[in-house]
Amino acid sequence: MAEEVILLDHWGSPFGVRVRIALAEKGIKYEYREEDLKNKSDLLLKMNPAHKKIPVLIHNKKPVCESLIAVQYIDEVWKEKCPLLPSHPHERAISRFWADYIDKKVYQLGRTMCATKGEEHEAAKMEFRECLKLLESQLGDKPYFGGDTFGYVDVALVPFYCYFGAYETYGNLSMEAECPKLLAWAKRCVQRESVSRSLPDQKKLMERISDFRKRLGFE
Amino acid sequence: MAEEVILLDHWGSPFGVRVRIALAEKGIKYEYREEDLKNKSDLLLKMNPAHKKIPVLIHNKKPVCESLIAVQYIDEVWKEKCPLLPSHPHERAISRFWADYIDKKVYQLGRTMCATKGEEHEAAKMEFRECLKLLESQLGDKPYFGGDTFGYVDVALVPFYCYFGAYETYGNLSMEAECPKLLAWAKRCVQRESVSRSLPDQKKLMERISDFRKRLGFE
Repeated sequence: MAEEVILLDHWGSPFGVRVRIALAEKGIKYEYREEDLKNKSDLLLKMNPAHKKIPVLIHNKKPVCESLIAVQYIDEVWKEKCPLLPSHPHERAISRFWADYIDKKVYQLGRTMCATKGEEHEAAKMEFRECLKLLESQLGDKPYFGGDTFGYVDVALVPFYCYFGAYETYGNLSMEAECPKLLAWAKRCVQRESVSRSLPDQKKLMERISDFRKRLGFE
Repeated sequence: MAEEVILLDHWGSPFGVRVRIALAEKGIKYEYREEDLKNKSDLLLKMNPAHKKIPVLIHNKKPVCESLIAVQYIDEVWKEKCPLLPSHPHERAISRFWADYIDKKVYQLGRTMCATKGEEHEAAKMEFRECLKLLESQLGDKPYFGGDTFGYVDVALVPFYCYFGAYETYGNLSMEAECPKLLAWAKRCVQRESVSRSLPDQKKLMERISDFRKRLGFE
């Protein structure tokens, strides 16, 4: 049977970027469908009735929702090329832990830091710094989180590289000073075509964040 | 090498219950160490520096944190007996999706419903009901979430059976009326020794929730 792979996505979504990178690493051809998040397609609502969110990977008519679950699915289905998760159970657990940590902390705190003022902003900023420090020490001097090869945790984190500018502008942070190893790692990742082609346009993304802040009355 | 398995846990934690059930299903002998959550052990702080939370599974000195990751780890290491995740990638993705949904929705909404008043309480209650309806329809007429055998989604959800009493008392819900199939499923699960021996004492748990509400000034 010919494989049919469709990705319901939105250009600016860091979660969508994860799935795009995983598909590109595996060399899977797929149809990209941009969703209008203010007017979601019937297909999206049907494929992800629980959350109604992008990204949704549709493989031979069957949906896989939630970006980290989709990346694991891609890794399990197309396992021959570029394995993303390590093969040893403990290393797999460690990879899953950090990917989950990125979901729970990096995304949420980064967003809160950029979308609040005063005490709430300061608290998020302090916790966000701790987060960066922890990721920096987990990366250490390895080229990638899993060691010598690009893998699952890299896929989970690198979409947030596009937000580094926002963290600097609205969080008043210097990423170079806070996490030099993480910055060098991100630049290393971006040299991969799978990553550079999947990331959203930086300028367009900054405009989107600025619009979001204007709606909150911050600008 | 003799296997050394230690579980850092707290008797009332639904997340800890998941790991206890998975270990029991696999017939793994382990040392249970109860943590005082107000005075966490040095071992816990060392083994889970990122979140400082129980449960932590320590297998041959190496920690695995986050309950769903620990359950997957147990399933991958001791794979011969009672597989918890299905073998087909799409079924695995579906199982992971629902376990993640339980983490994001059931736990959080149930807690909010029991610990708030007024509008916030009503909003949480309405969303919680939607959640139960969705889980009820996902279960359908199958004996377990994955089909005929007890598996990953069952392990993820059944610890919340102990909270059904609290949902009825503080959410003013009838679980029998809201989700009769889910209730029958929970009773089916509890017939398994792995589950019945892992669940916390219902009366003690209700006292704990009542104390929590007293501290919030609700009782």
